[in-house]
Amino acid sequence: MKIGILGYGNLGKGVELAITQNPDMELVAIFTRRDPDKLNINSDAKVVHISDIKNWKDKIDVLIICSGSASDLPEQTPEYVKYFNVVDSFDTHAKIPAHFENVNKSAKENNHIAIISAGWDPGMFSLNRVYANAILPNGKDYTFWGKGISQGHSDAIRRIEGVKNAKQYTIPVEEALQAVRSGQNPVLTPRQMHIRECFVVVDENADKERIENEIKTMPNYFEPYDTIVHFISEEELEEKHSGIPHGGFVIRTGETAGSKKHVVEYSLKLDSNPEFTSSVLVAYARAIYRLFNEGQTGCKTVFDIAPKYLSLKTDEELRKEML
Amino acid sequence: MKIGILGYGNLGKGVELAITQNPDMELVAIFTRRDPDKLNINSDAKVVHISDIKNWKDKIDVLIICSGSASDLPEQTPEYVKYFNVVDSFDTHAKIPAHFENVNKSAKENNHIAIISAGWDPGMFSLNRVYANAILPNGKDYTFWGKGISQGHSDAIRRIEGVKNAKQYTIPVEEALQAVRSGQNPVLTPRQMHIRECFVVVDENADKERIENEIKTMPNYFEPYDTIVHFISEEELEEKHSGIPHGGFVIRTGETAGSKKHVVEYSLKLDSNPEFTSSVLVAYARAIYRLFNEGQTGCKTVFDIAPKYLSLKTDEELRKEML
Repeated sequence: MKIGILGYGNLGKGVELAITQNPDMELVAIFTRRDPDKLNINSDAKVVHISDIKNWKDKIDVLIICSGSASDLPEQTPEYVKYFNVVDSFDTHAKIPAHFENVNKSAKENNHIAIISAGWDPGMFSLNRVYANAILPNGKDYTFWGKGISQGHSDAIRRIEGVKNAKQYTIPVEEALQAVRSGQNPVLTPRQMHIRECFVVVDENADKERIENEIKTMPNYFEPYDTIVHFISEEELEEKHSGIPHGGFVIRTGETAGSKKHVVEYSLKLDSNPEFTSSVLVAYARAIYRLFNEGQTGCKTVFDIAPKYLSLKTDEELRKEML
Repeated sequence: MKIGILGYGNLGKGVELAITQNPDMELVAIFTRRDPDKLNINSDAKVVHISDIKNWKDKIDVLIICSGSASDLPEQTPEYVKYFNVVDSFDTHAKIPAHFENVNKSAKENNHIAIISAGWDPGMFSLNRVYANAILPNGKDYTFWGKGISQGHSDAIRRIEGVKNAKQYTIPVEEALQAVRSGQNPVLTPRQMHIRECFVVVDENADKERIENEIKTMPNYFEPYDTIVHFISEEELEEKHSGIPHGGFVIRTGETAGSKKHVVEYSLKLDSNPEFTSSVLVAYARAIYRLFNEGQTGCKTVFDIAPKYLSLKTDEELRKEML
């Protein structure tokens, strides 16, 4: 299976790594908007400028698009599914239906297959919500994120005047987790579910009091939460907070018709958010390639794909070893 | 969707209950080997002797077979898939490949569809093993069961001379769970993973010392574990141990190619093992009925079925609300 990567940021680098753990895959090309001669990569793949991507139309089985959800994916996924089978990790939840329609139309017109939103949330978390809801129709869903770095919240802090750099950890509130697991079906405010802890590097002579206040009162991002702000040095930020951990919990509590309570919980603890997300993308690249070979086209999500298509094992091996 | 139940034990009663939570389903008949006139059920379904089951061939969309794995399901599932689409919860892991072949052959010859081994282990636990293995090919799987009642172990105690009744709880060892979650990849013996706690009612004047010794030294069942034995009265057993709770943990720890560690954990905490298992069976009854209407036949497992087929929601609703 010949794989191409579009975009060589954290996620693209993660896909490059993940492919080395999957012996049925070969990374043939990395496409970039930057100058290919100046891109140092960690594999033998060809580095190709994005303007040449159409020349690779028949040389790649699946293109994994590793761009951002804000402005790139809504343009790129419907465009490149004209030439390739594609995978993306589009994660702007509210815009998924519109993105799906665009990608589906383009994929069907060009007899290709795509999967969108294939990461962990959306992705593995979504899957677990659907399974648990189907089994326990009478129940309540909870999603907790963290402990982990929120890129969006870190960026929001960096935009404040006087801030040089910042990392923000989203942390689930332990008492809320316990209340949910106990089957109490609590109604929880954002403040009761998550804490926001910020590590901030500021310019010399910056007004820390003003900055802390601007963070804590920022609408949507920080105002609805208990927020902790630490001012630290650039060196300490680099030393202690340069990782990109994340994770979280999807819990459904429900009652069956005999008034019995049940708790279904799925959780992830990830040392590297991009390395895990890219491992999901790679598994779904395998899945859509197989579905394409069965004659399927159009846009898919994780809900449309049977688990066996993700696995390196044969159906017989799966039944024998994993069932 | 018209549903039939074969077998009216704990699991059959659970299916009868679960159907009341699924508005697209109607329970039309319960088939039994007992005298139908003497069976008191909790619904308006017809109670029918198993000898008349073939007369219901065209009146039922899916037959959920709620019999035991030891001797009934290996006979019944291949037999009744001749006349119906069927679901079972066959759970003798080592015999699944043979059971699959028998059911698959019979289903294909008669243009029906079946799903076998659709519970939580095998079932939801198996699913989570496959997803986690596909995403983290370099890693290690752990399954812990409990805290919950093991029917097989309780039965084994009841066969000892002088024992009137018994319940056995399988309990995961907390330190082992923590070691696994921490990503240490421990190699664990059965004794290190699970404790077996037994509540035993004995005949008057029975030799408790002999009975405790027979339990603790029973090969395979108890000898490889730390076993705790409590002798209690029939009244206390009834009062404190008449529930059928169960659950467990499926954990995969793995390393991506950038040497980053990840932990994927799925857990169930069930107040009623049969009510939860039957809720899974009902969701998969929906799934195979839909696949049958798409023209599919033969035997399936949870690995072959895309998550959307289990859900009451439309594809559009799933993408909008659950992704």
